[in-house]
Amino acid sequence: MGYVLAAHQYGKAEIRVVRIYRDAAQHQIRDLNVSTYLRGDFADAYLQGDQSSVLPTDSQKNTAYAFALERGVAEIETYALALARHFVEQVEPVRSARVDVEEYRWERVRVAESDHPHAFVRASQEARTASVTVEGRGSDQRISVLSGLRDLVLLKSTGSEFAGFLHDRYTTLAETHDRVLATALTATWRHLRTEGDWDAQHTSIRQLLIERFATVHSRALQQSLWEMGRAVVASHEEVAEIRLSAPNKHHYLVDLSPFGLVNRGEVFHADDRPYGLIQCAVQRDDAPPAGPSWQAPGSFAG
Amino acid sequence: MGYVLAAHQYGKAEIRVVRIYRDAAQHQIRDLNVSTYLRGDFADAYLQGDQSSVLPTDSQKNTAYAFALERGVAEIETYALALARHFVEQVEPVRSARVDVEEYRWERVRVAESDHPHAFVRASQEARTASVTVEGRGSDQRISVLSGLRDLVLLKSTGSEFAGFLHDRYTTLAETHDRVLATALTATWRHLRTEGDWDAQHTSIRQLLIERFATVHSRALQQSLWEMGRAVVASHEEVAEIRLSAPNKHHYLVDLSPFGLVNRGEVFHADDRPYGLIQCAVQRDDAPPAGPSWQAPGSFAG
Amino acid sequence: MGYVLAAHQYGKAEIRVVRIYRDAAQHQIRDLNVSTYLRGDFADAYLQGDQSSVLPTDSQKNTAYAFALERGVAEIETYALALARHFVEQVEPVRSARVDVEEYRWERVRVAESDHPHAFVRASQEARTASVTVEGRGSDQRISVLSGLRDLVLLKSTGSEFAGFLHDRYTTLAETHDRVLATALTATWRHLRTEGDWDAQHTSIRQLLIERFATVHSRALQQSLWEMGRAVVASHEEVAEIRLSAPNKHHYLVDLSPFGLVNRGEVFHADDRPYGLIQCAVQRDDAPPAGPSWQAPGSFAG
Amino acid sequence: MGYVLAAHQYGKAEIRVVRIYRDAAQHQIRDLNVSTYLRGDFADAYLQGDQSSVLPTDSQKNTAYAFALERGVAEIETYALALARHFVEQVEPVRSARVDVEEYRWERVRVAESDHPHAFVRASQEARTASVTVEGRGSDQRISVLSGLRDLVLLKSTGSEFAGFLHDRYTTLAETHDRVLATALTATWRHLRTEGDWDAQHTSIRQLLIERFATVHSRALQQSLWEMGRAVVASHEEVAEIRLSAPNKHHYLVDLSPFGLVNRGEVFHADDRPYGLIQCAVQRDDAPPAGPSWQAPGSFAG
Repeated sequence: MGYVLAAHQYGKAEIRVVRIYRDAAQHQIRDLNVSTYLRGDFADAYLQGDQSSVLPTDSQKNTAYAFALERGVAEIETYALALARHFVEQVEPVRSARVDVEEYRWERVRVAESDHPHAFVRASQEARTASVTVEGRGSDQRISVLSGLRDLVLLKSTGSEFAGFLHDRYTTLAETHDRVLATALTATWRHLRTEGDWDAQHTSIRQLLIERFATVHSRALQQSLWEMGRAVVASHEEVAEIRLSAPNKHHYLVDLSPFGLVNRGEVFHADDRPYGLIQCAVQRDDAPPAGPSWQAPGSFAG
Repeated sequence: MGYVLAAHQYGKAEIRVVRIYRDAAQHQIRDLNVSTYLRGDFADAYLQGDQSSVLPTDSQKNTAYAFALERGVAEIETYALALARHFVEQVEPVRSARVDVEEYRWERVRVAESDHPHAFVRASQEARTASVTVEGRGSDQRISVLSGLRDLVLLKSTGSEFAGFLHDRYTTLAETHDRVLATALTATWRHLRTEGDWDAQHTSIRQLLIERFATVHSRALQQSLWEMGRAVVASHEEVAEIRLSAPNKHHYLVDLSPFGLVNRGEVFHADDRPYGLIQCAVQRDDAPPAGPSWQAPGSFAG
Repeated sequence: MGYVLAAHQYGKAEIRVVRIYRDAAQHQIRDLNVSTYLRGDFADAYLQGDQSSVLPTDSQKNTAYAFALERGVAEIETYALALARHFVEQVEPVRSARVDVEEYRWERVRVAESDHPHAFVRASQEARTASVTVEGRGSDQRISVLSGLRDLVLLKSTGSEFAGFLHDRYTTLAETHDRVLATALTATWRHLRTEGDWDAQHTSIRQLLIERFATVHSRALQQSLWEMGRAVVASHEEVAEIRLSAPNKHHYLVDLSPFGLVNRGEVFHADDRPYGLIQCAVQRDDAPPAGPSWQAPGSFAG
Repeated sequence: MGYVLAAHQYGKAEIRVVRIYRDAAQHQIRDLNVSTYLRGDFADAYLQGDQSSVLPTDSQKNTAYAFALERGVAEIETYALALARHFVEQVEPVRSARVDVEEYRWERVRVAESDHPHAFVRASQEARTASVTVEGRGSDQRISVLSGLRDLVLLKSTGSEFAGFLHDRYTTLAETHDRVLATALTATWRHLRTEGDWDAQHTSIRQLLIERFATVHSRALQQSLWEMGRAVVASHEEVAEIRLSAPNKHHYLVDLSPFGLVNRGEVFHADDRPYGLIQCAVQRDDAPPAGPSWQAPGSFAG
């Protein structure tokens, strides 16, 4: 009885690429965190220590920087697609490549009520994300494009309840018909196409998620997520599927009665841990199979 | 030869107080991280384990929550001042109290081009800060109020140089007349008064810091900081002093010449560590002594 | 054309359970971070906001604490298994449950060359991990048990090279036959059985991973990982598969030649980002299918 | 009325220097995080953007790496002292320099019950620290040496109480005569001398702190800290002063009575925030003034 090298991949993670566009008077900035992952005929590097088929992760890093100049970073989806295609098509042993990009948000500095041409202020901790996987070459090539966001921190101070839930031996939670609901949303959507107006689509989907979070009267975070997700799929026919992962960032009403005070939903303790974690996927009926889209490298080892 | 208990203080750190104002149709939120530090006649707790003079840190936490309701959190400076005064004036063994507050920024969600009444999106990683120290009672009472901000992340993509510097045996840095300048600013200013329109003043000073960072042609981060700081002191006569601490978040031009590419200030590597750290204080000529204002609890043990 | 709720799960993440065994003179401590995830008939919570089938995440938290007393935490695998089984077998709508546990390492304090009976010092940032998934009831029940560790930080100061690799247009890396090799290992292994001497097995596998990292002359981190993984599978017949994820924490030789110094592998810069990321799985020939074992909740949304 | 540049300093923070000693068969590793801060005649850089007196922070970084080879890192105190002296004595405009060093702990890998010659495993999150300040030259030179540690995480599962404390209007805490006491200690001690057997002294003081934490029956964390600090000063006549900063990492007894269980100090919730923060200084009667020792750069701006 023996054993085998059952799976493997390698790459360069967290390449911090900053691309400045300075052709026009008004500079633009795209601030990225890029990770590359290659799969293919690399077994000998593991089994024998033979590197002859291994493109160094250092070269992958160089490619990410060079492409930022050569191809530009008009939109992170197109940039990731160019990189992933390059690795599959130009590096012989590569069978498939995944490129993950996070983009950080900057706003223009306002001076005297005008946009400053080359000064920026970091807008939020939120990141815009893209993940492109390219498998194979020529007519067999399959491409998957995911877009998304993470750490979109949302809170509503009313319009949320949690009641009528199942009770078991270990249930002590009181029902509530008015609570604070807060989350740090991760949302990722899979595209039916490999081309699109990615910036405009991202703006539209982000706004839709925020609006639905705000306006849906929430009987549970589950319900909010579904309504957020289905609004995206319903109004964006180019989206095959959206996945939402939302920690329930608990805000506990502080009991002030020992001090003779009545706390009518005005003072809360924002707790760190534990937190609820609610996740769902909303998928178009006719969506094609996801293929390798959702195999995040971060989860490789469980 | 002996030894003594030379100094001591204690308190409750990082109380996460969230205050919702829900009286009007338009809710408001103030999201705080509060820390309290008490100094006074607490030596017996150390020397003998005698707690009879020790107000539990748990009670300090309760007070922070109760005050958020009783006194409200109109502005973090007034809230911190109320708390610090309370500890000194109402808790017998307390000789001085420091209350630090961080406030996190939220923006209203926009729905159909209107502000939503009770939904919010976290605005940035930046925090607004206040630190109030109250010493003594009655006519001997001294009060220090600091306001500030931290993690205001700024970047300019041109208008910054670094040249003409000192060379020693270990100097290899090339001069540059056009570089990216980026920082995550911490700024703290000391007030001449204990009352003010804190919100308006904060908005004004923050905007001034950003504008000066943007518009000063920078021959070094040092120069930018001085120009930022002095603009605040010059235009805000109620500010005795401002201190600025600014990491130089290095953006290194990537050498793309091995790939036949010319990188004219367009592609950078955003490095993590090490970073320069530039600090300065700008003080009004006639500023009174700072007293205990700047003794941050975080630096107690070096 | 429509859309569906294609997948969903929910639970309580990062429940910080500390269990003290104080029956004997020598106390014991098990310090855990527990996360629970339930899948089953919960669609109505999403689709209609109907909570009648939803066991609150708060109840899941309570269960984790109660089980730490009722069932104890002899070993994290048995504790996780008891919890996961409970949710599937006792909570009607639950079809499958996953319980993830991290355990933090404490060592006994030594006083006068003896173990102190009830004082401990935190041993390292490393965590021991277990993930148990239970699906179904009765004879259809399927159970998957994973064990592992994360953040085992290893370094060898010689005995590592990287040469003979593939070159493409973007390759500038020099070959090296003597470098520092460092990583923060995540390793997870899947068991063939649901019972075992988990503590002894963990100690044995951890030691094997460390020994192989140390003693294999490394021609690449890939080779080291394979040798580490296969040693585990070869000597632990109860292990179906092991997965390894290893950042290549780059230590760059500092060029000191401008200062007239020759750096013969003695002074390095430990870089933060980017880093290589090497991953592989070693599997026994006759391993049964993994089932849901590796579907980490953290990767749900990509 | 005008304003002045009242204070300033600059330097390079978090230089990640790794020094390998490979002369003997048994390699040694010293893994450092070094920060340098210079004060002196640098006003023109702020006021006029004139860099002619400014040694680049990049040169300071280079010096830290070069000294790791030229002078070695036998002990972090001597390394920091050499660096700080160099800046003051060799760089003309520098009036005083502070060098902070953190050292990370590695243990040798054990293979077949022997120490492996060149493989290491990271020992814990704890860091050893040193801070050296050098002011002036020649006979006026003043030198301050601090040594210490941070993030020494300690826990005792009994032998700790908290009772008999002051009550005010906001006190709800119950007294306890048996609780878990846990902290992540920062300790820093100031030396009377600038030479010493730093490694041996560090080992001795660290052990003393741990032993006293373990063996003192604690009526409050305050009392434990005093007993820990005074043991150091009493037995180390070369220590002028020690400062201790200790978060009270609360472990709350979980109420399991709703589930018919009696929790006799066996199951706890390890809470994140808020936490108590207890700080004290124990000083030798005849200690000379501290001078600039404790002016941590991190607290410059409050």
